[in-house]
Amino acid sequence: YELSVNEGFVTGRVNGLAVMGQDSGIMLPVMAEVTPSQGPGQVIATGQLKEMAEESVQNVSAIIKKFSDQDLSEMDVHVQFVQTGQQGVDGDSASITVATAVISALEDIPVDQALAMTGSLSVRGDVLPVGGVTHKIEAAAKAGCKRVIIPAANEQDVMIEDEYKEMVEIIPVSHISEVLDVALEGEPEKDSLVDRLKTITGSALPKKGVRGPSSPSPQ
Amino acid sequence: YELSVNEGFVTGRVNGLAVMGQDSGIMLPVMAEVTPSQGPGQVIATGQLKEMAEESVQNVSAIIKKFSDQDLSEMDVHVQFVQTGQQGVDGDSASITVATAVISALEDIPVDQALAMTGSLSVRGDVLPVGGVTHKIEAAAKAGCKRVIIPAANEQDVMIEDEYKEMVEIIPVSHISEVLDVALEGEPEKDSLVDRLKTITGSALPKKGVRGPSSPSPQ
Amino acid sequence: YELSVNEGFVTGRVNGLAVMGQDSGIMLPVMAEVTPSQGPGQVIATGQLKEMAEESVQNVSAIIKKFSDQDLSEMDVHVQFVQTGQQGVDGDSASITVATAVISALEDIPVDQALAMTGSLSVRGDVLPVGGVTHKIEAAAKAGCKRVIIPAANEQDVMIEDEYKEMVEIIPVSHISEVLDVALEGEPEKDSLVDRLKTITGSALPKKGVRGPSSPSPQ
Amino acid sequence: YELSVNEGFVTGRVNGLAVMGQDSGIMLPVMAEVTPSQGPGQVIATGQLKEMAEESVQNVSAIIKKFSDQDLSEMDVHVQFVQTGQQGVDGDSASITVATAVISALEDIPVDQALAMTGSLSVRGDVLPVGGVTHKIEAAAKAGCKRVIIPAANEQDVMIEDEYKEMVEIIPVSHISEVLDVALEGEPEKDSLVDRLKTITGSALPKKGVRGPSSPSPQ
Amino acid sequence: YELSVNEGFVTGRVNGLAVMGQDSGIMLPVMAEVTPSQGPGQVIATGQLKEMAEESVQNVSAIIKKFSDQDLSEMDVHVQFVQTGQQGVDGDSASITVATAVISALEDIPVDQALAMTGSLSVRGDVLPVGGVTHKIEAAAKAGCKRVIIPAANEQDVMIEDEYKEMVEIIPVSHISEVLDVALEGEPEKDSLVDRLKTITGSALPKKGVRGPSSPSPQ
Amino acid sequence: YELSVNEGFVTGRVNGLAVMGQDSGIMLPVMAEVTPSQGPGQVIATGQLKEMAEESVQNVSAIIKKFSDQDLSEMDVHVQFVQTGQQGVDGDSASITVATAVISALEDIPVDQALAMTGSLSVRGDVLPVGGVTHKIEAAAKAGCKRVIIPAANEQDVMIEDEYKEMVEIIPVSHISEVLDVALEGEPEKDSLVDRLKTITGSALPKKGVRGPSSPSPQ
Ligand SMILES: [Ca+2]
Ligand SMILES: [Ca+2]
Ligand SMILES: [Ca+2]
Ligand SMILES: [Ca+2]
Ligand SMILES: [Ca+2]
Ligand SMILES: [Ca+2]
Ligand SMILES: [Ca+2]
Ligand SMILES: [Ca+2]
Ligand SMILES: [Ca+2]
Ligand SMILES: [Ca+2]
Ligand SMILES: [Ca+2]
Ligand SMILES: [Ca+2]
Repeated sequence: YELSVNEGFVTGRVNGLAVMGQDSGIMLPVMAEVTPSQGPGQVIATGQLKEMAEESVQNVSAIIKKFSDQDLSEMDVHVQFVQTGQQGVDGDSASITVATAVISALEDIPVDQALAMTGSLSVRGDVLPVGGVTHKIEAAAKAGCKRVIIPAANEQDVMIEDEYKEMVEIIPVSHISEVLDVALEGEPEKDSLVDRLKTITGSALPKKGVRGPSSPSPQ
Repeated sequence: YELSVNEGFVTGRVNGLAVMGQDSGIMLPVMAEVTPSQGPGQVIATGQLKEMAEESVQNVSAIIKKFSDQDLSEMDVHVQFVQTGQQGVDGDSASITVATAVISALEDIPVDQALAMTGSLSVRGDVLPVGGVTHKIEAAAKAGCKRVIIPAANEQDVMIEDEYKEMVEIIPVSHISEVLDVALEGEPEKDSLVDRLKTITGSALPKKGVRGPSSPSPQ
Repeated sequence: YELSVNEGFVTGRVNGLAVMGQDSGIMLPVMAEVTPSQGPGQVIATGQLKEMAEESVQNVSAIIKKFSDQDLSEMDVHVQFVQTGQQGVDGDSASITVATAVISALEDIPVDQALAMTGSLSVRGDVLPVGGVTHKIEAAAKAGCKRVIIPAANEQDVMIEDEYKEMVEIIPVSHISEVLDVALEGEPEKDSLVDRLKTITGSALPKKGVRGPSSPSPQ
Repeated sequence: YELSVNEGFVTGRVNGLAVMGQDSGIMLPVMAEVTPSQGPGQVIATGQLKEMAEESVQNVSAIIKKFSDQDLSEMDVHVQFVQTGQQGVDGDSASITVATAVISALEDIPVDQALAMTGSLSVRGDVLPVGGVTHKIEAAAKAGCKRVIIPAANEQDVMIEDEYKEMVEIIPVSHISEVLDVALEGEPEKDSLVDRLKTITGSALPKKGVRGPSSPSPQ
Repeated sequence: YELSVNEGFVTGRVNGLAVMGQDSGIMLPVMAEVTPSQGPGQVIATGQLKEMAEESVQNVSAIIKKFSDQDLSEMDVHVQFVQTGQQGVDGDSASITVATAVISALEDIPVDQALAMTGSLSVRGDVLPVGGVTHKIEAAAKAGCKRVIIPAANEQDVMIEDEYKEMVEIIPVSHISEVLDVALEGEPEKDSLVDRLKTITGSALPKKGVRGPSSPSPQ
Repeated sequence: YELSVNEGFVTGRVNGLAVMGQDSGIMLPVMAEVTPSQGPGQVIATGQLKEMAEESVQNVSAIIKKFSDQDLSEMDVHVQFVQTGQQGVDGDSASITVATAVISALEDIPVDQALAMTGSLSVRGDVLPVGGVTHKIEAAAKAGCKRVIIPAANEQDVMIEDEYKEMVEIIPVSHISEVLDVALEGEPEKDSLVDRLKTITGSALPKKGVRGPSSPSPQ
């Protein structure tokens, strides 16, 4: 079953992108909700996350805790990777997707469902490069999305086929503040939030990655 | 031993549905109780839950914590999958069953025992599709139930045999508020509860799932 | 060594029944004590409990926490399966034994030692069926007990040999309140306790189980 | 190295007895100390305890928490099995040794070092039978002890060789209060402590165990 | 992808150095952020750290907790080893890198990105020797860094090739206060911080290590 | 690399001794630091400690908690076994080394670096025998130390070669108070600390161990 949502605005729901096998992408949504905590506040992530994915959620939590208006010590943050089944979720390329879903839920600002995104994240807000961007962009296009956010450092990796070129707009970003500026609906609340996020240092990273000879391909 | 209950109204008890092997369904009840906590409040689920089932209980807890009238920080929520034996419980298709049992126990509103249900749940209240709906509906009918709740996204998957068609009414739902509106007894308390639950965003999901070519069959 | 106690009244001690191998029962006592807690209050069970047995203690704790007069948040509840050795304890058929021992210790009301019992328990007080009732009843008779409590849903399973028929009285029950009414000594304190326990919903379950064709035999 | 102490009185130190291999006993001391806690109060046992030994310490803690004059919620109880090496400690036959060492440390009353002891313990103070009593008594005699405490239920198991008969006095006990009456030095403080411990129910157990045909030999 | 940053000043980001395989170095950044805690304050390190790396973060935390102006009991310290992928991080040679990143984030003082560093750390501030310094220095030079910090005890191990000799300045250090004096930007704040750190005892260690005959080569 | 320090006085640093393989000793320092805690106070030991070594740190903590002037509930005690590499630390023979390092850090009294030591410890302050004393003494002599503390119970085991006899003074001890009297610098503070430690009971143990026929050789 594939429950694509590709239009409208929904709070706490973001279209993520993953790679299946070697040469195929898939759109997988991430949902988030923020609730009063039962014991001490915690971040609870489901979808059978493997270690790198669990750690990517911990990295996202640094940004959430630093920039939230709200006191998270008595709140639970729920993150759900939907429809990942028994194989679960690996890697850290959904970091910006998780961050966007949680901030949308926390601030109660809807997210554009005609948008899909992929990108890793540093604890200070830099958007870091990921693998498989070409396959992911094609998956977003096939699912009917109009725009796709990718890391600026991955711009040179995009080898999209002609048939998709007119279907989707590709938006390279290098900081989480840019992601939210693109993804969130509405203006005054969003702008103050984006301004707050911009104060993180993440400007150290170049817009384009320098590919070294023996560098591994994180996905 | 099969202890079917298929009539009357009972608080904290809901008829769930599971698939056994490849082509057979079974009705398995879920029971819930809410008590003062001993240490910090927690959700305690028994019945030898495997990882996906444990995570489905965590997802349900997001909805409980968000929409309960009561302060859960000093309460324990007990969820018991009854008669699951050594093989235990896997998958997330009992999520709406667990949610209904816990809300019934918390709010002290009885649940219709002539009703059975199956459905996964997002942390924001969407009812998500599951596998094996045809076998599950037949199991509910054989056990004497009059109504069965299934995810709206599974409506197209129902290939029920003629002999069962008149025995059970099939009720497709796409949000947890609809589940409770059908399952709970009584009116004023239920209606205010259902209204509260309706305010969750879950309206993003289409009533009918779009089946993609290579999509996995979650069960 | 077999330290059978089969007469008199003792607080915090209940004669349980277990199955050894395929066709032999054994009487195994459960002891309980309630103390000031050291850290946050907890339930501590010893006797090398395997997972189903640990979960049965968690289910019992739901009933204890709900119906105790006392604040358990600063108390530890100790449950000891005596003389289980290296092989430990499995299954959930000692649930009513554990519940009776703990309530006896908490309320300081002695338990009849001429009584043995077996039965699983729901978090809402229903006594659920178990396996091996015939062998268990015979073990209780051999150990000199005069009465045996079994789940009402197991009544049809009793195939007791003639030699034991006059030795033990079989008492079928379907709710934890009936167990305590039979097991505890004294009247005024017991009756108020039993009345409190009766208010749990457990009346949904039929007195006699309906055996389905392919149902597993929990033990 | 064998550091036997077999005379004088020492606080927080008790001579325990263990079985090595099939037919040899050894005297192994247990030491205890009670300190202000660092985090929440806890019982900390060292000496590479295996599961049954860890559980025996938990059972002992029930008695300590119930009968201590002091508030243990801000105290740590340290229990050290000395010189057990890499093989560690298994079984529950040192329960009364641990209880005596901890109570000696808590109440600051010295323990007779010319005494050795073996015995399991229920959470309510009953001394339960153990294995290997004959070998253990001989080990105590060889180590120069004058008295040995054993469970009353093991009295019939003592097949001591003539050479040891005049060396050691064998003291059968059935309740922890008797152990402390024998082991602790001094009078007024000890007597009030022993009286408090006597109020536990442990009187249900017969002084002599009834050996059943197929009973296992706990050690 | 290799996202080298080799100029400017960035808060909470430090260029670390690691050895890949037998004879090749790599520059790997460490990032840190300090946020209000959700539950009790903790140090959260990501990048698939193996046991020695986890322990090196614990050792660093001793220095952070001792010398921070701020109360860390309600703060979370996030440490991220960036781009380590599935193979993760082992060893303790990034200890001074982690310490510098966290102190930069805590005190909000930028770090020189034209600097790379390697070095282990004692809980009292001594910089301890590491393996692979020659390969690491070459990697820093190739990545465009102008200066490299190494442990004074490793000075004798540097066998750098001529082509790199003019590219990088090698700065041997024996105490964490020297590392920060070199790495941090600005003056008044830095100097008071460095002075505070100098009061740690770490002066016991000689500037040059004495290589013993059978000593292992920590890396 | 071997970073021997064998002269002067340093706070929180003690020269320990270990055995490598069958017939060779090595001097390994232990360092300690005490800091404000982040969460609840705890003892944090690094150096890849195996179970016996972890337990020896727990035993040491009993003495620290009992005899410290300071409230440890809001302090973290860091213990670092330096340069143990991937093979880590096993056994309990560094117990007195750890105790001395922590007490030095807590009380801020320097430790003699011309001294090395080996010895296990009971929770009440007795110094217990260890293995390999001869090889350890030789390692201390080779490393330039002038004095070596060993357990009194190991005095008979010393078979030191003539070449070392004039290099090192061997100091047998039976209680932790003697260790600190030898190791710590200064007088008034040290003497009051040593006096406090002397009040522990540890006097039960004989100065010389009695070697039994089948006793194991703890190391
Ligand atoms: Ca999980
Ligand atoms: Ca804008
Ligand atoms: Ca479980
Ligand atoms: Ca209605
Ligand atoms: Ca256990
Ligand atoms: Ca009655
Ligand atoms: Ca242990
Ligand atoms: Ca007396
Ligand atoms: Ca980790
Ligand atoms: Ca300066
Ligand atoms: Ca460790
Ligand atoms: Ca002196």
